[in-house]
Amino acid sequence: MSEKLTIGMFGFGVVGQGLYDIIKTKDLNLEIKKFVIKNADKKRSLPAELFTTDADDILNDPQINTIVELIDDADAAFAITKRALESGKNVVSANKKMVASHLEELAEIQQKHGTSLLYEGAVCGSIPIIRNLEEYYDNELLHSVSGIFNGSSNYILSKIFNENQSYQTALKDAQDLGFAETDPTLDVGGYDPKFKLAIVASHAYGIYVNPDDILNLGIDTLGEADVRYAREKNYKIKLVPLARETEDQKVVLYVLPRFIQKGDLLYNVENEYNGVVVKAAFADEQFFLGKGAGGHPTGSAVLSDITALRYGYKYEYKKHLEGQGVSYSADHELRVYFRYEDEDLLEKIQFNQVLERFHSADHKYVIGTIALQEIIDKRDLIHHQDNFLAELP
Amino acid sequence: MSEKLTIGMFGFGVVGQGLYDIIKTKDLNLEIKKFVIKNADKKRSLPAELFTTDADDILNDPQINTIVELIDDADAAFAITKRALESGKNVVSANKKMVASHLEELAEIQQKHGTSLLYEGAVCGSIPIIRNLEEYYDNELLHSVSGIFNGSSNYILSKIFNENQSYQTALKDAQDLGFAETDPTLDVGGYDPKFKLAIVASHAYGIYVNPDDILNLGIDTLGEADVRYAREKNYKIKLVPLARETEDQKVVLYVLPRFIQKGDLLYNVENEYNGVVVKAAFADEQFFLGKGAGGHPTGSAVLSDITALRYGYKYEYKKHLEGQGVSYSADHELRVYFRYEDEDLLEKIQFNQVLERFHSADHKYVIGTIALQEIIDKRDLIHHQDNFLAELP
Repeated sequence: MSEKLTIGMFGFGVVGQGLYDIIKTKDLNLEIKKFVIKNADKKRSLPAELFTTDADDILNDPQINTIVELIDDADAAFAITKRALESGKNVVSANKKMVASHLEELAEIQQKHGTSLLYEGAVCGSIPIIRNLEEYYDNELLHSVSGIFNGSSNYILSKIFNENQSYQTALKDAQDLGFAETDPTLDVGGYDPKFKLAIVASHAYGIYVNPDDILNLGIDTLGEADVRYAREKNYKIKLVPLARETEDQKVVLYVLPRFIQKGDLLYNVENEYNGVVVKAAFADEQFFLGKGAGGHPTGSAVLSDITALRYGYKYEYKKHLEGQGVSYSADHELRVYFRYEDEDLLEKIQFNQVLERFHSADHKYVIGTIALQEIIDKRDLIHHQDNFLAELP
Repeated sequence: MSEKLTIGMFGFGVVGQGLYDIIKTKDLNLEIKKFVIKNADKKRSLPAELFTTDADDILNDPQINTIVELIDDADAAFAITKRALESGKNVVSANKKMVASHLEELAEIQQKHGTSLLYEGAVCGSIPIIRNLEEYYDNELLHSVSGIFNGSSNYILSKIFNENQSYQTALKDAQDLGFAETDPTLDVGGYDPKFKLAIVASHAYGIYVNPDDILNLGIDTLGEADVRYAREKNYKIKLVPLARETEDQKVVLYVLPRFIQKGDLLYNVENEYNGVVVKAAFADEQFFLGKGAGGHPTGSAVLSDITALRYGYKYEYKKHLEGQGVSYSADHELRVYFRYEDEDLLEKIQFNQVLERFHSADHKYVIGTIALQEIIDKRDLIHHQDNFLAELP
């Protein structure tokens, strides 16, 4: 019933090692034949003959029928994935940027060559959200999918709100613990959750959206005044990607910091946890919570994809093929808090309505409604160390 | 790619109606040809020719390839399901008692006849827990699966803890709203969550356990003193089914009221919501939350099963077939709170250790450790209007 998998793996970092740890505890009818690594000199915990620096050792090996791709470089990952799928090998990837940026082409390649690319590990670590959107909510009218998709920035926000740390201390803490990279822009700038959002939106609504076209603002300019404001109103701040179907079959997508009220499902998602909220016409509100990062949770998702390949599983992209008639749009109005420094700036950004204004010796903010397209157009003005923008409930 | 389904449906109650509401909004390549109902005289919202009181009109119709079974009577449901599966028809059922009581036989029949029985709607309404245990956590070392599986009793407990209602008022409230039956024993006595637990445990661990062999105590004897005790300790009380793998590949199963601490994932699961906590070696802690009852959430799960049948989906029962080597056991010690009235009773029940004793004019309780087998053996003594037993964290 199950097909024996002979695996070639690219990368042997924290996820690769986590995966290897998992596999060795089980009898799974699969074998990891070779790892391709960048640095041949690094000391490894496994026998040297398992490692190579030459990608061809895997990609040209006819015995290897499955590629597991766990490298950081999205361009290299895409080249590997494409070549593997085209040569009849199935692929499991955890590279969200690669998948998000090339999803339409990758779906076409899979169809043309009858191969399968699975990427549950690319989105929210251990939470099986892609599988559930693809299989379980395949005929649901989905109102929205949102959540906390980035463990690093959520860890930082938890430290700030629960332990009164400053942004800088919390960031350093996260970096020391390995939850954040030396250059944390991908995480705290909201790029990482944006890639995941593009993939989620694709499986939720059957659309392909270039991540470059999706707005992301992060928590990288969060200041003490913003935290104080949140506390006064009994809010926490979370970094939230959102896909929402509006009337007229339009789907709005963006990643923004958001003030979260007590009682909201995301309010208690703390530290490195991820959470996904699916709102649907009939299933109503569904919530998935799990660890979003780390070698074992992501390894667990990757392993689940690997073992599904033994049974010939592939994403059907049914919603894409059937054509849901929905399309990506930025036609949406938001209610936001915007802290700023430069009074001239406020002249350049057009709010639909200004509801509150606050001035004090050390900071100023405005509460108002604004078009999503206006934030996209003025992103470079808005995203500045002196400013912070967040959506209000 | 997808097969056209011609459906015969047993029952047209709240779930059947919910399902019909959902189906009519979509173009799903499926048709409901006939409903079998008990009461021919009842006014229906659909044309009379869609209804029959003769099961043979569906079961003998060769055009009908799919049976959807939504009736309350577990024995009748089993007869229908068995006959349908044996005659080559696939079945979707939401009857937890029927599925839990006959799972092993039903799995055998499916294998013998190559037919498929799906029952996601039988467990925790809209939460896709069976599918995920079967497909996604199929190679995970699962430490435990627990949660809130019964919306009616959870609704009652929410009213008691959040709105200071008495048990009797809360129960009546739930009955008035249709969340609890006129005879609420199945729900508040913990039988309904026990059936669901047997199904969950089966897909988690590959075991078949007769629900009659699983301990259940409910919230039907909850008193004011117990609520006061919980409040003093900052606990809530929830009715929690638990499947846990102990050392030596034993799986312990029981349904008991439990004191729940703030910070526990189940603490904020309120009213008619269900929540499932999966603890696994690699995915770590996973949490699923969704509406556990009602026509639309359950209808949504049933529909998801129906549409999966279009693609030939069946539970593989891989864990059962591969033999995980685990077996059901009652060899487990619990820490419990036990309120009692009759001092003699305490002589008859053997605690491993008594940690605290409390006496006052109006009530008495003991805190201690006790063997699960002892609770099972003395269940008839323990389950009495004057007593209340709950597990401590």
